[in-house]
Amino acid sequence: MTMATVTAQKIAMKHGAGGRSMRRLIEKVFLNGMTGPAAAMDDGAVIPFGEQFLIFTTDSHVIHPLVFPGGDIGWLSVAGTVNDLAMMGATEPLGLTCGMVVEEGFSIEDLSRIQNSIRAACADAGTAIVAGDTKVMRRGEVDGLIINTSGIGIAPRVVRDSGLRPGDQIIVTGTIGDHGMAVMAARHGFAFGVPLRSDVAPLNGLIRAVLDAAGGSVTAMKDPTRGGVASALHEMAGKSGVGIVIDESLLPVRPAVRAAADVLGIDPLLIANEGKALIGVEPGATGIVLEALRSHPHGRDAAVIGRCVEESPGSILLDTGFGQRLLSEPDGELLPRIC
Amino acid sequence: MTMATVTAQKIAMKHGAGGRSMRRLIEKVFLNGMTGPAAAMDDGAVIPFGEQFLIFTTDSHVIHPLVFPGGDIGWLSVAGTVNDLAMMGATEPLGLTCGMVVEEGFSIEDLSRIQNSIRAACADAGTAIVAGDTKVMRRGEVDGLIINTSGIGIAPRVVRDSGLRPGDQIIVTGTIGDHGMAVMAARHGFAFGVPLRSDVAPLNGLIRAVLDAAGGSVTAMKDPTRGGVASALHEMAGKSGVGIVIDESLLPVRPAVRAAADVLGIDPLLIANEGKALIGVEPGATGIVLEALRSHPHGRDAAVIGRCVEESPGSILLDTGFGQRLLSEPDGELLPRIC
Repeated sequence: MTMATVTAQKIAMKHGAGGRSMRRLIEKVFLNGMTGPAAAMDDGAVIPFGEQFLIFTTDSHVIHPLVFPGGDIGWLSVAGTVNDLAMMGATEPLGLTCGMVVEEGFSIEDLSRIQNSIRAACADAGTAIVAGDTKVMRRGEVDGLIINTSGIGIAPRVVRDSGLRPGDQIIVTGTIGDHGMAVMAARHGFAFGVPLRSDVAPLNGLIRAVLDAAGGSVTAMKDPTRGGVASALHEMAGKSGVGIVIDESLLPVRPAVRAAADVLGIDPLLIANEGKALIGVEPGATGIVLEALRSHPHGRDAAVIGRCVEESPGSILLDTGFGQRLLSEPDGELLPRIC
Repeated sequence: MTMATVTAQKIAMKHGAGGRSMRRLIEKVFLNGMTGPAAAMDDGAVIPFGEQFLIFTTDSHVIHPLVFPGGDIGWLSVAGTVNDLAMMGATEPLGLTCGMVVEEGFSIEDLSRIQNSIRAACADAGTAIVAGDTKVMRRGEVDGLIINTSGIGIAPRVVRDSGLRPGDQIIVTGTIGDHGMAVMAARHGFAFGVPLRSDVAPLNGLIRAVLDAAGGSVTAMKDPTRGGVASALHEMAGKSGVGIVIDESLLPVRPAVRAAADVLGIDPLLIANEGKALIGVEPGATGIVLEALRSHPHGRDAAVIGRCVEESPGSILLDTGFGQRLLSEPDGELLPRIC
């Protein structure tokens, strides 16, 4: 794809879907030959700071509906940014900013409730909103409420999503697909008999426990949000130059999510999470990491789900028990406005 | 206004206008008893960092139209955040983040042009976008493009908008009303014979020159964006506990802006600026500061416009030459989506 072909196009939903099209848009239009911290396309920027590293990250949240089972845009906005910091090794945020864009006519009572969620989530993560900005757009110019949160934190050692090596084990910190399935059910009014709940949660406490227990053995981390575990694994494998073999039978999936996914014909690997991490670990440290994870409320269902290999760098092989198949990188828009 | 009365209301355009209603919304809903860096309601948060201070700030930009005479949303997004950092004494940004929310169908060519403006503005300010985020909303869910930029920088000494003392002189770094008037003309297709141009520009180089020349004598700074010079002066006077007397005849206003303001019946004091600062200076240092300002391309029209007094703390007195009148704090929405 040349620059000319990209710029003749229009923005489509897939450009915000966290998959291949979004990555290409960022590479061709936003980065376009740029060097420096952003060019790593990590979850956050790494700015050397004395002997440590300042991590700086941003996320705009456009989720619909604003309130969903298990959380709301307030919880999401804090967790999203705290988790991006944590994934890079900054588990004690110095602070977050909060930029709100609100539609004229939005209920101030609802805004107050969302504000309360922001505070509760900050308390949970041991951080605070330290600066903010408020813009109002006319009725119909924006749908309800958009929240940007940016965050800074110090990482004694930076963990990247590109650090996997052949032999490393891949751990997921818990069940997959909970957030996306809960939002989808809430948005479309699906009911599956069993309640679905988003997993939205700040993970910095969980990740701190892992890094305290096994710091140097953690080779890569990433939170599987838009595009789900499939998208995150592709990014990790591609940047690290390894192949990843996933054992499908080891993937932790709640029965309710499994049932809903079966009815809708969607692979849980493609569904967004907001309270999970993928962790690459040196083989010898798997036990220590699993123990640290399972001792924490957010990591009880942690499991080893696969391993890194030298073959087919950038590819994800799914072992289904009946053979292996290539898991393709998600591209289209499974569910817009999931985060 | 009690919490109950606030929360029974709906968000109105005035809640994003930078004036009294916005301040009350922030105090009652967003801060609501909160302490810590955000409670200062400064342009950015101050986080002590060794012997220096980390400044952290955020701004969402919703300007309409996206391109206007003298700039576009790309220039604005960088200048807005760089200037917030500079106003607090951080004139060398460590980096900015950029969170884009784009409407489906938006031209990728236009997005590339805006991206080029972002780069040019960053180069001008000696900084870079170090991390980003892209979200896409469906056609009709957001009007075109919203850009959030957050920024961090180090301030050897923090300057606040609350540091004015009786006797301090008030300096404006150049002509007022250029940005708002240019955007208004572009939006509504007004033509006044003379071209109007936004003053949008990163001011960190200018402010660095001032602080290098007269550092300790600068008691307060603020950039008069939404709500114009009137709103910024009210905030500075209120927080500092001083009155401010402005000599109307000393206000630098371009003839084209004056003419347009006269036709539209708008006071230039109420019109937004995106490349100007208000600086409080100890009386003895006025000459040094003016010299530093006027030696810089962005400060050629700098002028002393008033002085701080003990009387009527929080009030702005406008000396019209025919007498003095109180300048009221702007509240309603003069021009939505100005930044």
